[in-house]
Amino acid sequence: MLCGGKKRRSRCPVSFALDRVGDKWSLLVVRDIMFRGKETYGEFLESGDGIATNVLADRLKCLETDGIIEKSQDPENKRRYLYRLTDKGLDLAPVLLEMMRWSAKYDADTGTPQELLDMLENDREGLLKKVRAGMQI
Amino acid sequence: MLCGGKKRRSRCPVSFALDRVGDKWSLLVVRDIMFRGKETYGEFLESGDGIATNVLADRLKCLETDGIIEKSQDPENKRRYLYRLTDKGLDLAPVLLEMMRWSAKYDADTGTPQELLDMLENDREGLLKKVRAGMQI
Repeated sequence: MLCGGKKRRSRCPVSFALDRVGDKWSLLVVRDIMFRGKETYGEFLESGDGIATNVLADRLKCLETDGIIEKSQDPENKRRYLYRLTDKGLDLAPVLLEMMRWSAKYDADTGTPQELLDMLENDREGLLKKVRAGMQI
Repeated sequence: MLCGGKKRRSRCPVSFALDRVGDKWSLLVVRDIMFRGKETYGEFLESGDGIATNVLADRLKCLETDGIIEKSQDPENKRRYLYRLTDKGLDLAPVLLEMMRWSAKYDADTGTPQELLDMLENDREGLLKKVRAGMQI
């Protein structure tokens, strides 16, 4: 059963991934945590992509249900949650990096840093380690 | 300007990709052409994922507008179109393959062939060449 109550469509692995992160917003939240050091609801909301509050709340809930992110109480502000990627969430890094490479190739106005593209080309494993360790882009 | 008339949200490369293929269906159409040898509207519709006809028509139009697929008249049936991936569409292969790897790791019931995972691990470039040449999964 999928988050939101729908049944899965098939055993296809592309479909499995899309059922979880195949919308305009889920991977942007993953990006915000993975590459931009964001961890709170407010920070995701201010991301500049214009996500609506109810959509963000829904996406965070589904990502948590699917085990892609986990939340904990902020020790400095008990009314606030901090969101982090689980291992399952961190393992989405190659998907995001391949999306970045594709966009860099086909978007004349891309914001992808050349350094990142060079690392992806020449030291993929090293780059993945750095991303896991909290590398900011 | 994006297909559908919306303005792009930012220069972020993840956002660029998601604005084009960040929905539940676009990448399934790309998968059908790339890995399953499908090329007609009717074949996409029968894929088993349950896409609605109007959604499929809309997705095909946007993928064509974005230069990810191209259509040509079927020489055997002039009332039918054949859809193929452009180079830009074929370059989405790494994104799909990384989605498959992620799904294979986290879906106990995955349909990903082990052979594909082995090739992705050990001969990534060879696998990408085979996919470009029309390898069926």
